[in-house]
Amino acid sequence: MRFIVADWGTSRFRGYLLDNETILDEVSSEEGVSNLQAGQHRDVFLKRCGTWLAANPDAPILLVGMVGSREGWAMAPYATCPAGSAEIAEALMPVEIGNGRRAYIVPGLTCAPAPGAADVMRGEETLVLGSGVEDGLVCLPGTHPKWIEMRGGRIERFATYMTGEMYALLREHSMIGRPATEPEDSRGFAMGLEAAERNNGSDDAHHVGLLHLLFGARAAVVSGQMASNLLAPYLSGLLTGDEINGALSQFNRPARVTIVANSPRADLYVTALERHGIATTIKVPQGALIAGLFKIGRSRSAA
Amino acid sequence: MRFIVADWGTSRFRGYLLDNETILDEVSSEEGVSNLQAGQHRDVFLKRCGTWLAANPDAPILLVGMVGSREGWAMAPYATCPAGSAEIAEALMPVEIGNGRRAYIVPGLTCAPAPGAADVMRGEETLVLGSGVEDGLVCLPGTHPKWIEMRGGRIERFATYMTGEMYALLREHSMIGRPATEPEDSRGFAMGLEAAERNNGSDDAHHVGLLHLLFGARAAVVSGQMASNLLAPYLSGLLTGDEINGALSQFNRPARVTIVANSPRADLYVTALERHGIATTIKVPQGALIAGLFKIGRSRSAA
Repeated sequence: MRFIVADWGTSRFRGYLLDNETILDEVSSEEGVSNLQAGQHRDVFLKRCGTWLAANPDAPILLVGMVGSREGWAMAPYATCPAGSAEIAEALMPVEIGNGRRAYIVPGLTCAPAPGAADVMRGEETLVLGSGVEDGLVCLPGTHPKWIEMRGGRIERFATYMTGEMYALLREHSMIGRPATEPEDSRGFAMGLEAAERNNGSDDAHHVGLLHLLFGARAAVVSGQMASNLLAPYLSGLLTGDEINGALSQFNRPARVTIVANSPRADLYVTALERHGIATTIKVPQGALIAGLFKIGRSRSAA
Repeated sequence: MRFIVADWGTSRFRGYLLDNETILDEVSSEEGVSNLQAGQHRDVFLKRCGTWLAANPDAPILLVGMVGSREGWAMAPYATCPAGSAEIAEALMPVEIGNGRRAYIVPGLTCAPAPGAADVMRGEETLVLGSGVEDGLVCLPGTHPKWIEMRGGRIERFATYMTGEMYALLREHSMIGRPATEPEDSRGFAMGLEAAERNNGSDDAHHVGLLHLLFGARAAVVSGQMASNLLAPYLSGLLTGDEINGALSQFNRPARVTIVANSPRADLYVTALERHGIATTIKVPQGALIAGLFKIGRSRSAA
């Protein structure tokens, strides 16, 4: 069965013509949601995918990502966890593309990972549904890494960390990252993981806090106790380690985690999880996205 | 005895003419270290304090703060903890001001608050020596809050947190703070403190991590579960609470903390420490600075 889908995020548009899970053709542009005004989305979509649309008049159309946010084509309200492909298919948000034809925007998800807490995702629900994990913990590294608990093929709950954004803030806008030099010495990453582990270990006196460890990294460089080319990888290790400590606490420390990411980012998580004695499986994001969209599309057809 | 001193930080120059600990005259300008080029410091000092210098030819001259950093008048190498006024007086860094007269820059301090960790301060050593605390824990809130353990009138060790800078990063450069609205609802601060406490409490499953709680604050607002005018105070409470958790862990949870800060910043720490059952004493920074400089000056004269 033919599908036309788009992975439409903040900074990029990626369209795919699919035959089941096989990519027949693809197109990509910088027409991400943040680069478009209200009202432009339909035209962009028709311009990029018009040939496929004409050649496949019955193909279902699915759009996923920030295209469904308040700043996107149309606001697709968050569905609530637990949610699988059936619940997501039911909450698809239709938009008119002309001649009576409709595209469907995949809704994001919201959940309360812990009592009183709140979390949201938009786009990652599709990746994780396509990860092949029916029961277990899935990690999606990135600017805002997500940890997702799957149960019976549905997304039970999830928690987002601001690790990637925090690293960028520290490097680009903070005095913490200013003494960092290149070429980086990647051994700093393991040193950062170690510091994060001490901060979370059995000795309460070592629970000094992330905000101190970050300042201490700068202090170590300016006082000559750490080489400046270790600093950036150290900060990355410290933040990643702190994220993993938190995720393992709230998701009951499983024996295996599935990581949906490309190299080299996936490798950093493999290394970090190995230190906790946790095995890993790596899945490629593009494959997971296509598989997730196919699953949602099939649920829609079945409904 | 007359002293001429300057509190010379990154953004401001503040000169004082003192008779012991009494301020006879003062001057202030925006000629902070970050606004000056190498070679300009002497001229600024003579321009601002020349009258006092002429009228008090024998008065000792002390300069404190970032004026002693690599970007300042002259690099005054860090002294090592433990250090009291005697050790600091011994490490004063002379600079020539003309006619054979010298000013002395107060050195910063370095320490290893925990094995393998590093920390530095420059300026705060003088405030804490003037805080009147001989034995106990002192907190200096600010962009980079410092927690300082005093033992026998000397600075035993200290730890810096990047709390204030982190708050500014989140408000000014991050998507986390973007949904925040004004006028702020100050009840958010206590909600943030509560979240920080859960993150550090007896239930390991609640140790979700600061990087998740920060993202969760944004998620709560965009999903309609938290009013947008609570967000900024909530972030402040969360960061302050996380700092205090770390400081109490590494400094053995004392019964009382002395806070060197003006209102309303001092009041936030009083509120936060009250939740831990910890009593507080507030000291005014200007008084502490003058008292600290007087103590260092007296140690120098005695040497």
